Amino acid sequence: MLSESLRHDALASRLMSAEEAASLIRPGSVVGLSGFTRAGDAKAVPAALARRADAAGLGLTLATGASLGHGTDGALAEAGALARRYPFQVDPRLRRAINAGEVLYLDHHLSETADLLRAGHLPRPDVVVIEAVAVHGQGIVPTTSVGNSAAFLEHGPQVIVELNAAQPAALEGVHDIATPAAWGKRLPLGILEPADRVGLPYLPLDPRNILGVVRTEAEDSPAKAEPVDATKAAIAGHLLEFLAREVRQGRLTSSLAPLQAGIGSVANAVLGGFANGPFSRITMYSEVLQDSTFDLIDAGRLVFASGSSITLGQRQDALRDFARYRDRLVLRPQEITNSPEVLRRLGVIALNTALEVDIYGNVNSTHVNGSDMLNGIGGSGDFARNARLSVFVTPSVAKGGALSRIVPMASHVDHGAQDVDVVVTEQGLADLRGLAPRERAERIIGQCMHPDFRPLGRDYFRAACRRGGHAPHLLEEALSWHLRAQQTGSMLPAARRRAG
Amino acid sequence: MLSESLRHDALASRLMSAEEAASLIRPGSVVGLSGFTRAGDAKAVPAALARRADAAGLGLTLATGASLGHGTDGALAEAGALARRYPFQVDPRLRRAINAGEVLYLDHHLSETADLLRAGHLPRPDVVVIEAVAVHGQGIVPTTSVGNSAAFLEHGPQVIVELNAAQPAALEGVHDIATPAAWGKRLPLGILEPADRVGLPYLPLDPRNILGVVRTEAEDSPAKAEPVDATKAAIAGHLLEFLAREVRQGRLTSSLAPLQAGIGSVANAVLGGFANGPFSRITMYSEVLQDSTFDLIDAGRLVFASGSSITLGQRQDALRDFARYRDRLVLRPQEITNSPEVLRRLGVIALNTALEVDIYGNVNSTHVNGSDMLNGIGGSGDFARNARLSVFVTPSVAKGGALSRIVPMASHVDHGAQDVDVVVTEQGLADLRGLAPRERAERIIGQCMHPDFRPLGRDYFRAACRRGGHAPHLLEEALSWHLRAQQTGSMLPAARRRAG
Repeated sequence: MLSESLRHDALASRLMSAEEAASLIRPGSVVGLSGFTRAGDAKAVPAALARRADAAGLGLTLATGASLGHGTDGALAEAGALARRYPFQVDPRLRRAINAGEVLYLDHHLSETADLLRAGHLPRPDVVVIEAVAVHGQGIVPTTSVGNSAAFLEHGPQVIVELNAAQPAALEGVHDIATPAAWGKRLPLGILEPADRVGLPYLPLDPRNILGVVRTEAEDSPAKAEPVDATKAAIAGHLLEFLAREVRQGRLTSSLAPLQAGIGSVANAVLGGFANGPFSRITMYSEVLQDSTFDLIDAGRLVFASGSSITLGQRQDALRDFARYRDRLVLRPQEITNSPEVLRRLGVIALNTALEVDIYGNVNSTHVNGSDMLNGIGGSGDFARNARLSVFVTPSVAKGGALSRIVPMASHVDHGAQDVDVVVTEQGLADLRGLAPRERAERIIGQCMHPDFRPLGRDYFRAACRRGGHAPHLLEEALSWHLRAQQTGSMLPAARRRAG
Repeated sequence: MLSESLRHDALASRLMSAEEAASLIRPGSVVGLSGFTRAGDAKAVPAALARRADAAGLGLTLATGASLGHGTDGALAEAGALARRYPFQVDPRLRRAINAGEVLYLDHHLSETADLLRAGHLPRPDVVVIEAVAVHGQGIVPTTSVGNSAAFLEHGPQVIVELNAAQPAALEGVHDIATPAAWGKRLPLGILEPADRVGLPYLPLDPRNILGVVRTEAEDSPAKAEPVDATKAAIAGHLLEFLAREVRQGRLTSSLAPLQAGIGSVANAVLGGFANGPFSRITMYSEVLQDSTFDLIDAGRLVFASGSSITLGQRQDALRDFARYRDRLVLRPQEITNSPEVLRRLGVIALNTALEVDIYGNVNSTHVNGSDMLNGIGGSGDFARNARLSVFVTPSVAKGGALSRIVPMASHVDHGAQDVDVVVTEQGLADLRGLAPRERAERIIGQCMHPDFRPLGRDYFRAACRRGGHAPHLLEEALSWHLRAQQTGSMLPAARRRAG
């Protein structure tokens, strides 16, 4: 039963089916899964869990790196298997259960989960399921993500390994696994540039803790294909122009600074833009490595990229030909990709997506109408707070122009104005550095708001200024755009709506 | 003209009056001043600036460490000398000018100003005025604070030294001045515990950059005396009981973890409480060292304290007898006291004051009714985001019970719920660790809200839950308590108000 991927004799007797493995998980358990932005997620065992006859009574706490693929979160939520979930998710069915109050969701800064577990602020995993390309006497070689797997293994849980034959063996060697000691006992992280390695190429684990090994063969769910439409291309264009100007003015060099880019097509379009223009010898210090990472390596523009996962859409070929890229990449635990210490040392350029931005530059990344969870804050706070330059992008409007993404007051705030240097919509770019709130408002309304909403935005701001304040608001009108949309479907007053 | 404090021959010829020094500052200049929480602030030159005949036309940008004493901010604002001010202030007259839109105020995370200057995101100081106990051929020995002085000196400004004979010479040696290199070029900070030193005991400066030396003799403005009333004593009591329980349950040791405490009497009361109870060999890694720091050293409970300033009220004796304390203390630049790298390594316990807290644990530290600046965010974000345990305290009510400090939705958010572990009012303590928003609301309303408001708070939360959401809100009512107070002076509906 031993093979290239199963390198420890004693484990041959622990091969089992996904159903057998799932049956070992007791009701009420805390279960930790590998997986970060649909990459390297445990696949077979959680699916079998959702199929268990008693799934609805399991009351599990489910912890991951970040989002899972394969509809796993949705299947578990629909089966009623979940009581709690952290630290991030993107599944529509789980989202519905969270917003209905059926699953309790803890929306963490992704750098923090490991420390919360280490300190006993959260209950520690009883069982951990990790996808691997290999397992040996010293530990587990993970696949396309690292996430929180190292932190989950710290506290001696029972471990199930999913040995996935569909993941390329060439991934071995790309990982760099280091685990900070507890608060007050840890040393500085020796990462002075994105390529520095500080750990081991596997997740260290005593194989006696491995309860079972499940053989699987299934690819990661691909990144969701979102076309780069004119709006997204315009956002990317404004930002590339701004960065080129920063280079010309000497505030950045042509290699920019290590880049972080949130997931999605705007980020891919911006990064794609670096293939042209005055940029060279670029590096990334990010969470997710996407198609654009590989395009930029191929174009000879990107020299190194550090992340916690590889999540591909069109560029599945990069995984099949992974040996070509391995020396240019490293995959790390998310407490290290998102470490405030490293981020502020490197001075990353952070590029994240806003759900809405208010006229003073406060950003809502998570809560629709202040109430309903969309996905989660993810790493946006880790990066925005500690970046050299924190950029938030959003289309100026949504729902065919009915909703403005630039609003008088955000209905929820994830990122205060101090953490927001630049806002970009397809309308333009607002450089907010060094500006006071009233100046920020002029620029955000003038540069970023859609022309359909700009007169309304100006009216609100002027009326608020007449009443006074550092960041003037009219509390009785501050959320009126949201309320109008809840009542009529549009933030525009009836008189201003365009004929449908 | 040379003396113990003036140790560089060439400077004797540059002694001048405060008026002469002030006359060297040109209209439109960026002026950097020493000073942090009323300590070690430049005193005579800014006062002379405010008296200049053309003060109203100066249009200065004024940068400091944090707040100044001696009414300096107020005098400059009233003279009309200021166009811009950063990164923190507490002066009532300046506050009025900021909220009227007359002075543009940049409210920074206090760790960030130095990097913003270094990167050219902000214009750099043309003239810097630093209070000193001594000046020599290698640089300046500051007095009771360090603040941003080292960062101000980095870019070669003209320098005026205020040599203050009222500050104890024994301060020399307490400072530890290190200046991180630019983003991308800096090394790890070698601070593994609060007592570690990584720099020089003076601000390095080529004396040729010193334009003038002004002799002064004036003590720092004392900390504002706020008595510890029953409310504050109750807050301190709840928190001390909680910390003692954390020690008993093994999540903290009896030496706790390096403490950060915001300024004020609640912090002093809590720290005072450590003189009793199961705590020993305590350390501080904070911004401001207050009376309680010296009380705890005297009581044999505090072994070391690191800060950026010493701001005393009743304990002025500690400065007069400073040699007794010097080896137990270090004063650092604020980018190092507030460094995310060091804070997350040490795992500090952060204790800060909230202006209001919403039912889900989002904290407003700065904006009254979402509009009017009170003081500024200061270091609260640096500490709360990176702490092992982030505690926010506030009385449950203000204005004789008319305003609840626990509200349905905060009118401004400085600290998202992820950065708030524990909320304490005189009513009780809400331990929010590991809880989802709906659970947090139950605990905050139940433990922290004043009984006069609790039924209203429960009604709001239940109605919002019926509508649904992850953190359920009724946008049409979310700010209704604030609006009612704006209209009637009370957040309580007429029917619930107690007879006056």
